Formats: sequence, C-alpha cells, structure tokens
Amino acid sequence: MNNPELTIQDVAKAAGVSPATVSRVMTGSAGVKSDKAARVRAVIEQLGYRPNPFARSLSQKSSRTIGVLVPQLADDFYGQIITGVDRELRLHGLQLHIALAHNNPEEETSALTNFAERQVDGMILIAHHISDQTLLGLKARRLPVVLINRSVPELSNHCINLDNVQGGFEATQHLLELGHRRIAHISGDLEIAGARERLEGYRMALRDAGIEPHEDWLVEASFSEEYGRHAMQRLLARTQVSALFAASDSLAVGAMIAAREAGLRLPQDLSIIGFDDRNFARYVSPALTTMHYPMLEMGISAAQHIIAQLREEPISRLERFQAHLVERASTQRQA
Amino acid sequence: MNNPELTIQDVAKAAGVSPATVSRVMTGSAGVKSDKAARVRAVIEQLGYRPNPFARSLSQKSSRTIGVLVPQLADDFYGQIITGVDRELRLHGLQLHIALAHNNPEEETSALTNFAERQVDGMILIAHHISDQTLLGLKARRLPVVLINRSVPELSNHCINLDNVQGGFEATQHLLELGHRRIAHISGDLEIAGARERLEGYRMALRDAGIEPHEDWLVEASFSEEYGRHAMQRLLARTQVSALFAASDSLAVGAMIAAREAGLRLPQDLSIIGFDDRNFARYVSPALTTMHYPMLEMGISAAQHIIAQLREEPISRLERFQAHLVERASTQRQA
Repeated sequence: MNNPELTIQDVAKAAGVSPATVSRVMTGSAGVKSDKAARVRAVIEQLGYRPNPFARSLSQKSSRTIGVLVPQLADDFYGQIITGVDRELRLHGLQLHIALAHNNPEEETSALTNFAERQVDGMILIAHHISDQTLLGLKARRLPVVLINRSVPELSNHCINLDNVQGGFEATQHLLELGHRRIAHISGDLEIAGARERLEGYRMALRDAGIEPHEDWLVEASFSEEYGRHAMQRLLARTQVSALFAASDSLAVGAMIAAREAGLRLPQDLSIIGFDDRNFARYVSPALTTMHYPMLEMGISAAQHIIAQLREEPISRLERFQAHLVERASTQRQA
Repeated sequence: MNNPELTIQDVAKAAGVSPATVSRVMTGSAGVKSDKAARVRAVIEQLGYRPNPFARSLSQKSSRTIGVLVPQLADDFYGQIITGVDRELRLHGLQLHIALAHNNPEEETSALTNFAERQVDGMILIAHHISDQTLLGLKARRLPVVLINRSVPELSNHCINLDNVQGGFEATQHLLELGHRRIAHISGDLEIAGARERLEGYRMALRDAGIEPHEDWLVEASFSEEYGRHAMQRLLARTQVSALFAASDSLAVGAMIAAREAGLRLPQDLSIIGFDDRNFARYVSPALTTMHYPMLEMGISAAQHIIAQLREEPISRLERFQAHLVERASTQRQA
C-alpha cells in the first residue's frame, strides 16, 4: 500500500506527534525516544506513507536548513515575517538559520558567505545592500533564493514585494473619501524604493481627485518616530492641512505627538493615517488608522516559494502583495 | 611589538572596518576585498596585535556560531533579548544560529540536537521543557551553555534570571506608596515560576504594609491581553479595589479594556501597573506605568557569559537582574 496523496502532516496527526518528529524518525536523527519512534514507524507502515523525492533528497544530502537574513529583530516587524517563514518551513521539517545584518553592506555579504559555508538549502533575504551581481551569482549556482522587498529584473520570479504604490494610493484615497482636500505627506527616506513608491501613490491619488499636490505639503523624513515629530513641526510651521498620510506607523505616532504639542485635537483638527499596522498601532490614542502590511503572509509565501524551488517545480512571477486599509479612530470626516 | 592590551575593536577602529571584518581577515575567510584585507593586515602589523588564545581557537576548530533557542519571535520580547545577544557576539566575530521552539517540548529537544549537529560553540537557551538531566548532560560534555529564565541548581552559575519577587514587590509597593490599600493582582499562569514569584512579591509587599491579601483580589490568568480582559471582568464582578497590579503589560492592557467597558475612569477610578515594559506600554492610554524588564541587558550578559566560558575563564554565580519602575500615567494617588 502506497498512497501518494499522504503527507507528513497526515502521519504526524495519526501518530500524535509533530511533523518534525516524523521527519526525524525518517531521517534517523537522534532525539526521538525509542517508543515514540516505534509508534511513528508503525503509523508510516500502516498508512503506507512514502516520502516524496523532495523529502528524500532533504534526508540524504542537505542541511535541512534555510538561511534567513533580516536587518534586525528589535521590533516586531521582521519578527512577524520570520514567524510566517518558520510556520511554513516547520511543516516540511526544515529549520531556519537567522542572521542579522543591521543594514550594513559588509555584514550582509558576510552573512551570505556564512550561509554558503553552512550549506543551507536555500536563502530568504531581506537585504538592500547586496549587489544585483552577487544575487545573480546565487541563481547561477542554482541555489534556491527568495528576495523580500527588493526588485532585481532578472530575478523577478524570486522577488516578493508589497505594492507600495497601491498602498500609498489607497491611504490617500481614504482621506479624500472623508472629504479632505489639503492632505500632507511625511515620507520615508527617499533613497528607499518603498518610500518613493508610497509617495508616488499619494501623488497619483491626489491628481486623480483633481488636486495638484502642493510642495509645502511634503516633508521627507526617515522611518522613525523622532523624524515624524520633527517633520510634523516643519509642516505646521509652513502650511495648514486637515489630514496627513504618514509613510509609516512610527512616523504617524511622532506626528501625533507634534500635533498635540501644537494644540491640535486628534482627529477633529487633523486626521492621520499611517502605514504598516505595527503591533502598537491599535494602542495609540486615537487608535491609528493605517494600511496593514501582510508581513506574516509574505513570510509564508517566501517559504512556500523556497520549497517549490527545492522541489524543482516551475515557478512563476509572484503577484505583489497588497496592503489593506484598517480603519480605526485617527481619521474622520472633514468638518 | 606585541601589546596584549589590544583588542580586535582597536584594530577594527584603526582600519576603519568592523570587528567582524578583522576576524574574517585573521581567519582567512572569503568575502573581504583584497585591498581592504591588505589594509587590515597592515594595521595588525603596525599595532602589533596578536589574537588571544580564545580567538585562535575560534579561528581553527570552531563553527564560530552560538545557538540561541527562543519560544517565538512574533512580538518584540525575545527579539530584544536576541538583539542584546547579537550586539555582544558580533564584537567577537561570532554568529547566532536562532531556533524557535514554540514552547513545545519536542521542538526544544530537536533544536538541541540540531545545534549539536551543526557544532555550535555554545548555546543560549530560553526553554522551559528541556529536562534538567538533558541540561546537565550538556555541561558534562563541557559545552558552553547559558540558560535564561530558568533555574537548575547544579547549573546556577549558568542561569540568568530576573528577580521576579523583587519586581512584584516593587510594583505593589508603588501602589501602596500612592495610598492604595485594596490592591488586586491578575497573575500569569501559575505553572510558570516567574508568575508565582511575581505573586509572591505582591503578597510580601501587602503583608509588609500590614494588609492581608484578600483571596477575592487574586485572579489567575495566562499572559495575554484576552485573559487580562476576562480576569478583570471576574474581579469587577466580585470585589471593589482602587488599584491593580497586572503580571504583564498584555494582561494590563486587557484589564484596561474591561475596566473601561465597566465604566471606570483610568486612572481616577483604578490605578493599573503592568510588568515588562513592552514597546506598546508607552502608547496605550493612559500610558502604562510598569516594571521595566531589562531584556537587552540580559541578552548582552548571556553573550558575555558564553564568551567567558569559551575562554575558559572562571565564572561565578550571576546576580539576578532587577526590574525597575517606569512611572507613566496609569497610576495615581488614591483620592
């Protein structure tokens, strides 16, 4: 009896253990008690489970590990992406090797070397400094790779991105639909593509509504609360608006602080929408309306994509992920 | 010229590169451009820098990697600890191998096996399910190990803990000093030692003030916002208090929601103090008074401790880390 539809999850469920344990029993790894291992083997026999070629190749010649490179883990943003990656990889008995590179070019390169030394089976990279050439070299060596938040034309089938133009457009559209006409934008660092794209979405939405974006309405900042506060102070000193689209939740929170310091009531005097939907967005007062960034889903997708590459399945260009509006209390109809 | 006081940091600074790059040059690893490598070697020569025996042993036979096991990374708590560990290890050219075990006994054990297979140089473990016996086995094999938030008597020199009794005591003391006498406590899951210790601190502080803790004032919950909300509903249904010590910030936020739903004004009708000082604590309204959990510092200390073990320096019992009071707006003097 050999049922090709059976998965490792079915075996795990029937044996009352985790898929990782089934994987360990099948690969003969240590760390599973003998009575439990015997139970798993009995279930494998009974159900007629045979691992697919992918699983066999993993058991024989690979490190069963995927390298994941992120800038940092001090807040919840990259932690959420990793949580998604981990959730999917575990189902396949694969492990993560996480490296932090602090947006530092040398450390990003060094992490790649380290992944190679450790013979990872694939890499998921959130790295802005590694050159396109280096990334193309990985592909030439047939190493499964997924890039998150990066666009390399020759690797377009390997890139997972958020549609930041659409996100910026919808955020601005939300304010327009509430009747606002004078809408400011605090952007992220415009050296970052995502920041430029959100700005582009903002401009498109205004022009679609027949409004020419005034240059006084735009302040370039960096993605942090402190920059948001200073940017808002500059905005308030030179113009008057009824609404603000801040390019991140951190910027929005900084802007809230500066607006309050200037005596504005929120949201009566100023509607504010952020971007990302970070953990703290629902806790600020008023609770922040924002564009939800599907971090968990992008992590899951990155892991599925790596697994497809390991299985040598054909892969096609990925759809961009869409941010979606989460309405809370920081935006209201223009009086 | 051979100056034994010189560190790898001095060389890095003089050469204008990162310590990791110096380490790579010294170990002959790939990934450093030849002109940069030449500059580093010139500085090493010029300063007379000689790596210490620890660095030499690392360069010759080790994986230069420390395994770090955490339950999850979906919020900022463990991310902060990892940030501290990473900050210190990088100074010594060491890398992290992070594994997530989801508070699952099998996955914790499996991660240990995996660390061993990858020949990590040491392990930093936040794991509640791995048996004392297994941990003693690691020590017997002379593998450097540090345990965070766990107490194993025979490994007391290897355990880094927060003094939760002191933290619970000071949190309650803060409410007592504000004139509160009827003080409730929402505890974490009392199967967790830290939750029991915070409760013990609460009781000690009340008794020190001549107040016998009333059993109606205590509700056992689990460390989550939803549990905090339900616990507060139960409290409000059966007793009246002027202040609450919640055993975590998540519990405190849940309690805030339930208190507002019941028509209480915060902090006028109810003072609330949390525990942990999570990222969101300063954003809730009123901003949450809480006990700061030194996650970053504990991560740094764990890494320093591993490095001391790698260097075979004598190690002594570690002081418990102390939580400290952060006063914000959610607590006020009893009217």
